[in-house]
Amino acid sequence: MSGGSARRRRLALVGLGPGDPELVTAQAARVLDEVDFFLVADKTGDHPGTADLVAMREAICERHVTGEWRLVAVPDPERDRDDPADYAGAVRDWHEARAEAWEQALLAHDGDAAVLVWGDPALYDSAIRLADRIEARGVVDVAVEVVPGLSSVQLLAARHRIVLNTIGGPITITTGRRLLRDAEHGDNLVVMLDGGLTCLRLPDPSAWQVWWGANLGSADEQLVAGRLDEVAGEIEARRAAAKQARGWVMDTYLLRRV
Amino acid sequence: MSGGSARRRRLALVGLGPGDPELVTAQAARVLDEVDFFLVADKTGDHPGTADLVAMREAICERHVTGEWRLVAVPDPERDRDDPADYAGAVRDWHEARAEAWEQALLAHDGDAAVLVWGDPALYDSAIRLADRIEARGVVDVAVEVVPGLSSVQLLAARHRIVLNTIGGPITITTGRRLLRDAEHGDNLVVMLDGGLTCLRLPDPSAWQVWWGANLGSADEQLVAGRLDEVAGEIEARRAAAKQARGWVMDTYLLRRV
Repeated sequence: MSGGSARRRRLALVGLGPGDPELVTAQAARVLDEVDFFLVADKTGDHPGTADLVAMREAICERHVTGEWRLVAVPDPERDRDDPADYAGAVRDWHEARAEAWEQALLAHDGDAAVLVWGDPALYDSAIRLADRIEARGVVDVAVEVVPGLSSVQLLAARHRIVLNTIGGPITITTGRRLLRDAEHGDNLVVMLDGGLTCLRLPDPSAWQVWWGANLGSADEQLVAGRLDEVAGEIEARRAAAKQARGWVMDTYLLRRV
Repeated sequence: MSGGSARRRRLALVGLGPGDPELVTAQAARVLDEVDFFLVADKTGDHPGTADLVAMREAICERHVTGEWRLVAVPDPERDRDDPADYAGAVRDWHEARAEAWEQALLAHDGDAAVLVWGDPALYDSAIRLADRIEARGVVDVAVEVVPGLSSVQLLAARHRIVLNTIGGPITITTGRRLLRDAEHGDNLVVMLDGGLTCLRLPDPSAWQVWWGANLGSADEQLVAGRLDEVAGEIEARRAAAKQARGWVMDTYLLRRV
């Protein structure tokens, strides 16, 4: 135990990639080896997929970390999901409570730390903002560094053997929450964080081609591609089956106007 | 020499990442080790940065390939850049000529091949479409696979320690050619393939924050961040200096409305 900050400690935000241990970079493997402990959010209870995520993380550590590793689980504060009117505000409050929890974990352990992040810390992930907040609070003296990782979107594209852009065209990366709005201006969209296949609510499903993937990088990866109206049923069925089998499902997809 | 295709050969499109050998994945390293030769586009002559790219590629191979490796340079056909009215058509013709050239290289060498791709084959890269075309032509029997790689955009974000999206917000990835149009609907844009800092022609530079990077992953990486009107001069100067020093510059940036 140590409450002091005799020296500046590393706080590395390490992108592990989408889950497959082969998709970890040499840099991520080196940093995991160098630090003294790993910080992970303890979401046990409200995430049924916890056991699978733990197993995937262990497979990554087994392969890339020399010797022992130490995991420090940080209790994840409750998040108010009932107020969609102030979504950004609720997320900010939750970040502040998390920053305090992570700070406590850093104060309770000596040495350098790595925060293990699925995918890429630069894409719909809170670790960078969390680290900014910890640094701004000034309670622990940390040198923050970011180790990029492959995102599930890149694995989706590789598995379907597609280029995310049309020739010279733009790509909109968005969330399920924003899809219906962003589809008005975009004709080539990557959708992440969609808890319920929002694409099925698009006005004209026959106008879109879809490349869908679930649990990418895990053992029970699912892939479906085709015209949205023609493959919607198969996607729904596969998504439901994956969720039934493991208690959770994470999916992402590319939509392109035909 | 062999003109036959007695067995189906692997044609792996391998994303090497942005240039830093540490940012190569374990999967890419394995595939580079497994294949018999590497295919690279021979752009000598019209690309002043060729020597640097060759040196970066060698550093990646030195680090990740066990034993010897064999590079097969494929002459890159001329590309008609003088007809912006039919940009997509010109790119398609060029792809067809390239497919024939790559096919010849595959016919002239035995064994499995990897096409070395900078960044990620899924992002503004022609290797996947090239492989589709080779497969469709049916002259050589290839089993195509895609190995994703980190893109320079991800390294840009890691170096600046930023998240590419605002909380819950979308990201538009676009090109210099499309930026002025896409900025009308987007307020958070990643710009790639911009040969001339198109952002400086945006109507109101004081309305944008920019995170810029050049030659990311190489020894003379350049980074500038700030309000676009305030840092435009510094970006121009650093871009010109980098180009002067090495004869080439590759840059990418994130623009976000203030």
